[in-house]
Amino acid sequence: METLVVVSHPEIEKSDTQQFLKASAASLSQVVWHHLDSRLPFDVTAEQQAITSADRLIFQFPLYWYMAPASLHQWLPDVWLKQFVYDARGGLLHGKSLGFVVTFSQPATAYQLGGSVGFSISQFLTPYAALAAKTGLTLLPPLTIAQFANQTDLEHQQLLVRYQQYSTLDHPDRPDEQAQWFIDRLSGNADTQLLADQLAAQTDDIDRLRLTLHELKAGESE
Amino acid sequence: METLVVVSHPEIEKSDTQQFLKASAASLSQVVWHHLDSRLPFDVTAEQQAITSADRLIFQFPLYWYMAPASLHQWLPDVWLKQFVYDARGGLLHGKSLGFVVTFSQPATAYQLGGSVGFSISQFLTPYAALAAKTGLTLLPPLTIAQFANQTDLEHQQLLVRYQQYSTLDHPDRPDEQAQWFIDRLSGNADTQLLADQLAAQTDDIDRLRLTLHELKAGESE
Repeated sequence: METLVVVSHPEIEKSDTQQFLKASAASLSQVVWHHLDSRLPFDVTAEQQAITSADRLIFQFPLYWYMAPASLHQWLPDVWLKQFVYDARGGLLHGKSLGFVVTFSQPATAYQLGGSVGFSISQFLTPYAALAAKTGLTLLPPLTIAQFANQTDLEHQQLLVRYQQYSTLDHPDRPDEQAQWFIDRLSGNADTQLLADQLAAQTDDIDRLRLTLHELKAGESE
Repeated sequence: METLVVVSHPEIEKSDTQQFLKASAASLSQVVWHHLDSRLPFDVTAEQQAITSADRLIFQFPLYWYMAPASLHQWLPDVWLKQFVYDARGGLLHGKSLGFVVTFSQPATAYQLGGSVGFSISQFLTPYAALAAKTGLTLLPPLTIAQFANQTDLEHQQLLVRYQQYSTLDHPDRPDEQAQWFIDRLSGNADTQLLADQLAAQTDDIDRLRLTLHELKAGESE
């Protein structure tokens, strides 16, 4: 799977969060870092080719007054032309997935009823849900990053894992795919092979237990 | 009341809708036309002064993929700085009102559940609701303009009236303020004075009938 990380950020060199994410993605050969602000004015054909080559698009940006920076709002009307995203069969983007990596400086709890912002990230992203529905893209749940600067080293490591999984797994929220991701990384190295085997065995156990539970419940309801 | 019409449109000279709205506002001395794309890069002090002078802000733009064009997304982070919109007493914008004039090329019925867009204009404007709540602005219901090019001359005239009322009335949706707006325009001219008197008399009648109805209902419930 090829992933195009479409980054909208006017001062990316000054952003510790973006530099961290860039470093997190650097080792992933199937992930392309695509910084919009440094590609202005857009070469529409090149932009469209980058989109066409990808299986997954990730819109990555900080929230400025609850919305993406200007470059994403320049890119969409310039590049996502009707004749490009639609075709006779229902859309050239059909079947690709669309994710979001959204960063903000408030705590995550602010983004709910009664919080200091009072609305959710999902509510703010509604226009992109409409765009995905119109173009046949499958939405992924957003990966949100609150107050990166206040996070501990451990939280940063967890974020790195989540970010790499988000960029590369078919279903980043599925526990079995997450476990397989760890197994793949731990295998083939003498120091970690035992850990990989242990994780794989446990993952199988969980699957078997789930199946047994499911059969028991099915039996009860007969 | 002073109104600042903040227009975000990259090709405003080619837009019949925007030219029509500009002409509609031209005769209103208390309405300032403020085209963002021709003010780039922003003089932050001048922009902030324009905002401070206004009692009402109107964000006016076409929907591009369900969002405003780039210039509004440049203006907000550049100009609406925290030290400008907040102060010790709770916000320099507190008490002003914020309206929207949103134009689009789909029929209005597309913007609802089951419509071809599937989401409402209000859903798309959620980030601005959060911005208004944060800065103490009072929201006005949006004035939406669907498929301007397909409208009849009569519909264009009705739009002109709605637009002028939206820019100048304290409560553009209140029938009594709308009626007074017509009375003001018809008075003092020999040709239309009779019509103004008639409209004023009818408006008074409606008020009296409402009051009577209200008293009758109050009597019933005693």
